[in-house]
Amino acid sequence: MTVITVGTIALDTVTTPEASRVDQLGGSAAYAALSASYFSPVELVSIVGRDFPTRYLDLFRSRQIGTDSIEMVDGESFRWSGEYFEDMNQRETKSVALNVLEGFQPKLAPAARAAQLVLLANCSPDNQIDTLAQVDNPAFVVSDSMDLWVSIARPRLLDVLQKTDLFVINDSEARQFMETKNVITAGHRLLELGPKHVVIKKGEHGALLFGPDGRFFSAGAYPLHEVHDPTGAGDSFAGGIAGHLASLGKTTFDFSDLARAVVYGTVMASYNCESFSTDKLESLTLADIARRFEEFQGFARF
Amino acid sequence: MTVITVGTIALDTVTTPEASRVDQLGGSAAYAALSASYFSPVELVSIVGRDFPTRYLDLFRSRQIGTDSIEMVDGESFRWSGEYFEDMNQRETKSVALNVLEGFQPKLAPAARAAQLVLLANCSPDNQIDTLAQVDNPAFVVSDSMDLWVSIARPRLLDVLQKTDLFVINDSEARQFMETKNVITAGHRLLELGPKHVVIKKGEHGALLFGPDGRFFSAGAYPLHEVHDPTGAGDSFAGGIAGHLASLGKTTFDFSDLARAVVYGTVMASYNCESFSTDKLESLTLADIARRFEEFQGFARF
Repeated sequence: MTVITVGTIALDTVTTPEASRVDQLGGSAAYAALSASYFSPVELVSIVGRDFPTRYLDLFRSRQIGTDSIEMVDGESFRWSGEYFEDMNQRETKSVALNVLEGFQPKLAPAARAAQLVLLANCSPDNQIDTLAQVDNPAFVVSDSMDLWVSIARPRLLDVLQKTDLFVINDSEARQFMETKNVITAGHRLLELGPKHVVIKKGEHGALLFGPDGRFFSAGAYPLHEVHDPTGAGDSFAGGIAGHLASLGKTTFDFSDLARAVVYGTVMASYNCESFSTDKLESLTLADIARRFEEFQGFARF
Repeated sequence: MTVITVGTIALDTVTTPEASRVDQLGGSAAYAALSASYFSPVELVSIVGRDFPTRYLDLFRSRQIGTDSIEMVDGESFRWSGEYFEDMNQRETKSVALNVLEGFQPKLAPAARAAQLVLLANCSPDNQIDTLAQVDNPAFVVSDSMDLWVSIARPRLLDVLQKTDLFVINDSEARQFMETKNVITAGHRLLELGPKHVVIKKGEHGALLFGPDGRFFSAGAYPLHEVHDPTGAGDSFAGGIAGHLASLGKTTFDFSDLARAVVYGTVMASYNCESFSTDKLESLTLADIARRFEEFQGFARF
């Protein structure tokens, strides 16, 4: 089954204690699509400028990611620049240039319209809703968001939540959004806003899945000695979830399907953190993913 | 099998956003012993002053906790006072009065000397080593520590680690001790200091167990909507681990025994947090513990 994902495609400039790289492939939809592509075909909905390197479009196509819904317009591509310090959990955004993203109005090509598994990767709730409206028969909707949209677009974000089957958000943003210090309370309050399931991402501490009737699943993070570049980890996580679900060949999922999807998301996020930019997400094998999934099963067994 | 535990017995004054209580039962050995007592007989090694309420000694005896190695001497009992704020993960120590603890030299009664499962709860490494030296045939040693001992008694703490089968420490303390921001690296470095296994406690984020040959287990925390008083959670956790191991009727444990022990520790810590002081640890049933253990199995299944 095909996954459609909407979100940003960016040229990122990232500095960590060990290296700095300019205009690397980034953006929520780029990470999410590459991650999902290991499990299922993907249709990517986004916008880039004329400066966007052809090699990145070629990369997408080489990984069963359809690019017919990536619009290329006059102007510069969206750019983001950030720096990580010794504690890789903290990052500082140095600059954001929306550029062509400012005028983005999703336009889905036929293959994207026909997709049933929808991943609304992190972007404006308006873009998320406009995309979903163009999908013919959305069967399962995963959506991701961030603090910016909680602050400046809350009513539209609430609309997204009403249409969402699985909402993904990180822990500090969930606490801010739901106005509580308690992440368990935040998860339950988010469920009351419409999504059938909620995943709260906790970075190095793993992820929590909340479902109907008090269903709950807790996944640790994959234990990493070194994090080279955590940019896109959350997007890769969401991509792994959506990709795995699409690979199951059905459109209704029980709680254990979603729990396994969260573990696949965790595996993809862990690989994402092991390299700069999308380096690792471009070069994995299905055997790498299967091996780490099995390893993870051992880490959770008691 | 009997667990011997050495550590502090305190009269705690605790303030949270919802309440404040004076001279409540506290101290690492009190929490650890009460927790372990649900699984196995316990011998408690500690010291109190003449002001120590008889009802607390009666409480210990009513819960199969031997008090023959609790010395009562002239002077006031050890007192600790602290406050928790809206975020219950942060606490401020208001005052510490060592009182009789200052002259504490563990003196083990025969029942304590004969115990095989040793829990060196959080107290000075000197007290831990002196206790262990008086145990006739220690078969398995669990030890717990804190940042204070890392700072002021590092050489003696390293001696404790050499004699430890399972070392327990919280995440920020492990990072400080091992001089790394990465908790996985901290766990592996601690293993190199002598203990066969290391557990890093992460509070609301669960616990990590590191063992030989790269063995690893990750447990989430039990999901709590409300934390009433986290004082003693780490001690209850260690007590649950030691108590469960002692209940197995053997002295060599495989990795899955230890992983299950970590889950029992997690269950006991979760109950501990649901009430002030030792209230909940005094009134649990075995059915409560079994129910939450099973619930936890469901939360980790995928």
